[in-house]
Amino acid sequence: MPDFAEPLARLITEFKRLPGIGQKSAQRIAFHVLRASREDAEHLAQAVLDVKDKLGLCRVCNNISDSDVCQYCADDTRDPKIVCVVEEPHNIVGIETTRQFEGRYHVLHGALSPLRGIGPESLKIKGLVERIGQGEIQEVIVATNPTVEGEATAVYLARLLKPLGVKVSRIGMGIPVGSDLEFADEVTIMKAMEGRREM
Amino acid sequence: MPDFAEPLARLITEFKRLPGIGQKSAQRIAFHVLRASREDAEHLAQAVLDVKDKLGLCRVCNNISDSDVCQYCADDTRDPKIVCVVEEPHNIVGIETTRQFEGRYHVLHGALSPLRGIGPESLKIKGLVERIGQGEIQEVIVATNPTVEGEATAVYLARLLKPLGVKVSRIGMGIPVGSDLEFADEVTIMKAMEGRREM
Repeated sequence: MPDFAEPLARLITEFKRLPGIGQKSAQRIAFHVLRASREDAEHLAQAVLDVKDKLGLCRVCNNISDSDVCQYCADDTRDPKIVCVVEEPHNIVGIETTRQFEGRYHVLHGALSPLRGIGPESLKIKGLVERIGQGEIQEVIVATNPTVEGEATAVYLARLLKPLGVKVSRIGMGIPVGSDLEFADEVTIMKAMEGRREM
Repeated sequence: MPDFAEPLARLITEFKRLPGIGQKSAQRIAFHVLRASREDAEHLAQAVLDVKDKLGLCRVCNNISDSDVCQYCADDTRDPKIVCVVEEPHNIVGIETTRQFEGRYHVLHGALSPLRGIGPESLKIKGLVERIGQGEIQEVIVATNPTVEGEATAVYLARLLKPLGVKVSRIGMGIPVGSDLEFADEVTIMKAMEGRREM
């Protein structure tokens, strides 16, 4: 690589550590910051520190929150009888953009992965069991990822939660809308066949 | 958009202001920062501020530098008789990666653009004329971009500098190596025809 002045080289290295940013993007962004005002750079730097300093986990559902209870758990208009379980806080974003789900959430902060030493005790499952124990929840939708880990977690949760008297469901799997059968792998097609609906 | 906690929403907004980063990338990066350690976040924030605080322009060529004179101007092994003129400091990066050019640089910090009110007085041209006045420079390679602005700047520089007794040349334009004639626009093909070389 060509020599950059040290602070510039360091900023490029820092940007390269972020997901989806390679050498060229990192250079472009670093030069952008260099050209920006000191004030803009301060805003960026402060925003980076603030997410570490001002955010914590919701006491109820473990979503990212700047208060004790997150906006979904605090929202009385949302249905407390139905809880959607996701692996990570950012999964909530995807579900919320549909504007269709009006229940509550529960964030596991991971998925079962024996290979990486992640067992049930590493996930935020205990709080979910406690929430169900309070009696209000009737259905748990398991929206973990359709991966080996996510599936394993879904199966584990179903076995654990069904005896507590709640309905446990899994999100549908199949061909993505707007895609083409041609691009789908055989497991996805199999899941799509299994999950067929009468018309 | 779904509601994010305020510090997270603010960080996403800050990342979206960077070049090449849209909503999805900004979210992914913001959640990455959120998961990273406080120390990593500090390093990123500090690096952002340091490029604004610790870098300035080289006194000779206007390249970005953390000292009075940049590494290329300070390097005695580089040929002081040949100077490559570029629009922006990051253009030097592209040329340096070739490892073929062993002369010096001069950064204009822009290109002529009457429409945007950028005239010769807005560019760092005066310093270039002074450098030529010192008598050591024999050739000026104009490596401004092959755009309307870059071309106008090249023509302007040629008229200004030739009377000072230096050779002024322009980088070659044509079909990019590894590309296909099919993808080249007509102006590029015209330039490639004009710039043909005997084999």
